[in-house]
Amino acid sequence: MPLAQVDTPALLIDLDAFERNLRRMADFAAKTGVRLRAHAKTHKSPVIAAKQVALGAVGVCCQKVSEAEVMVEGGIGDVLISTAAARAGATLDVLVEIDVGGRRCGAAQGEPAARIAELVAGSPHLRFAGLQAYHGSAQHVREAGERRALIARAVEQVEATRRALAAMGLEAGLVTGAGTGTYENEAASGVYNELQCGSYIFMDADYARNKRADGSLFADYEHALFVYTTIMSRPVPERAVVDAGHKALAVDSGMPVPWQLPGAQYQRPSDEHGVLDLSGATARLARGDKVLLVPGHCDPTVNLHDWYVGVRGLGTAGARVECVWPVAARGALF
Amino acid sequence: MPLAQVDTPALLIDLDAFERNLRRMADFAAKTGVRLRAHAKTHKSPVIAAKQVALGAVGVCCQKVSEAEVMVEGGIGDVLISTAAARAGATLDVLVEIDVGGRRCGAAQGEPAARIAELVAGSPHLRFAGLQAYHGSAQHVREAGERRALIARAVEQVEATRRALAAMGLEAGLVTGAGTGTYENEAASGVYNELQCGSYIFMDADYARNKRADGSLFADYEHALFVYTTIMSRPVPERAVVDAGHKALAVDSGMPVPWQLPGAQYQRPSDEHGVLDLSGATARLARGDKVLLVPGHCDPTVNLHDWYVGVRGLGTAGARVECVWPVAARGALF
Repeated sequence: MPLAQVDTPALLIDLDAFERNLRRMADFAAKTGVRLRAHAKTHKSPVIAAKQVALGAVGVCCQKVSEAEVMVEGGIGDVLISTAAARAGATLDVLVEIDVGGRRCGAAQGEPAARIAELVAGSPHLRFAGLQAYHGSAQHVREAGERRALIARAVEQVEATRRALAAMGLEAGLVTGAGTGTYENEAASGVYNELQCGSYIFMDADYARNKRADGSLFADYEHALFVYTTIMSRPVPERAVVDAGHKALAVDSGMPVPWQLPGAQYQRPSDEHGVLDLSGATARLARGDKVLLVPGHCDPTVNLHDWYVGVRGLGTAGARVECVWPVAARGALF
Repeated sequence: MPLAQVDTPALLIDLDAFERNLRRMADFAAKTGVRLRAHAKTHKSPVIAAKQVALGAVGVCCQKVSEAEVMVEGGIGDVLISTAAARAGATLDVLVEIDVGGRRCGAAQGEPAARIAELVAGSPHLRFAGLQAYHGSAQHVREAGERRALIARAVEQVEATRRALAAMGLEAGLVTGAGTGTYENEAASGVYNELQCGSYIFMDADYARNKRADGSLFADYEHALFVYTTIMSRPVPERAVVDAGHKALAVDSGMPVPWQLPGAQYQRPSDEHGVLDLSGATARLARGDKVLLVPGHCDPTVNLHDWYVGVRGLGTAGARVECVWPVAARGALF
């Protein structure tokens, strides 16, 4: 099907960019020798998880038991549930989460975390497998030096916890964490041996505002996810209204960015509408024209849609739909 | 099932409050003689639409064709699609939308709108039925006097359009619009003859910040919709972490409000977590305790969930699940 026949709003994957992103992170993991356990809360799709595993990821990470169920049903064998765990008659590997700076969940570093690990190790159906040490709030800090410093502090806390564990005769086999904003720091730490990056496959507008060490914008991964919209109203020259608002786009990390429309700004989303301010734009746009939006935040945007529309040749006149993949774990909240 | 056995996060309806809300708006419509066409984009449920119709609503309003399909399949006969319209071999009643102040879609008042009406009236399969004149941005203006003034200006624009229509020999049989924030003004205008209120059934936290003419908070309708959450971590005395973030709650109109927990504030939502700041709270809360959150904005919150859990006796020890209703039009984006 040609892209132009797709109903809007629709969640598009630029398959070319997406595949380059998959390959780039897989190459990084292979080069550094750190395992990649890609976070499935980004994509909620066993189809995508299988592609990550095929390129060398050890498995996926899930935030919810119901997401993990969808992954296992979809053929993904190695699933880590990073916040819930441990109800079953089998022996479960359990990670102890430590708060490395996010001030959310997790035990305090050192003794308190080690005492939980000791309880786990002493429980008949559980095995202490290591530490979950993800620093979520460091991911979107704009300056590379600040992100590096935050992860350096996280590493100190992991090391303090490992010392407390050693004093109890325990060892953290696995130290897992990291996201798309900081993973190079964790990989270089010598302490983390598994990365949980999720967003790298799609690259949202917010990650594109992060900076690299040389001050340039973070562009190691390409925008591969878009919300495809139609201009449904064109009431005055400086304003166009598109058919995607809060029910098609998450705006918690900033507004979506119109793709390849310099000067156009998406604003004032309501439930089913968004306004494009065209007062600074050069493009001529008419009612019925299509506009691609780069989501501000991929994960909750994906969770609004029932399927991905995979497009080959996006941005060319011959853009065609190649596949439709269900967002199989959409709404998996438990 | 007792409420306490419901998995979290879950979308709850307080059936007692919900039924009082339904009744209150139905009584208002009956008293004023203005038709109620309840907006189904709030609830996306034919079960709820049928309850509104049973109490006298003429039908429902939908924002998307795919929502309307779900309503018709669910047995709702009279559906108005307020922004899309008109592709079919049958004769369709068509409303012309005018921009009465929201600066979104809609033709300009007077001549421009009347010219569109003339085109509709002259088309073989269309019938000009009236004007769609909803002032969305007036709904959440806090002061009653300001809301009244905005609707007074909308009424002037409707009247100017009616004069332009009359000059072309056309008449707007229906003038439809209004939301939960302003409907008393439209009903009293003598110009609007149909109300499209949606949120009154659930009353979100943002509408509860509106004021009435006497300066008191708008409390004509009761909070009937909640996201039911569990405290999953309790790391320090002033902080609790609940299992509902951006994927269970829309925060575009402000944070959800913890229900009957004075001083507790919901903050820092991430995808699957929310932090309760308890530094000013009196309640003692432990890990595993349940917390009800009043959504900041009902419509996009509903759109995140697959079903409603209808609870009788919410707030009492005997709270029980009475029904589960699918959010049948969830994700109906087209």
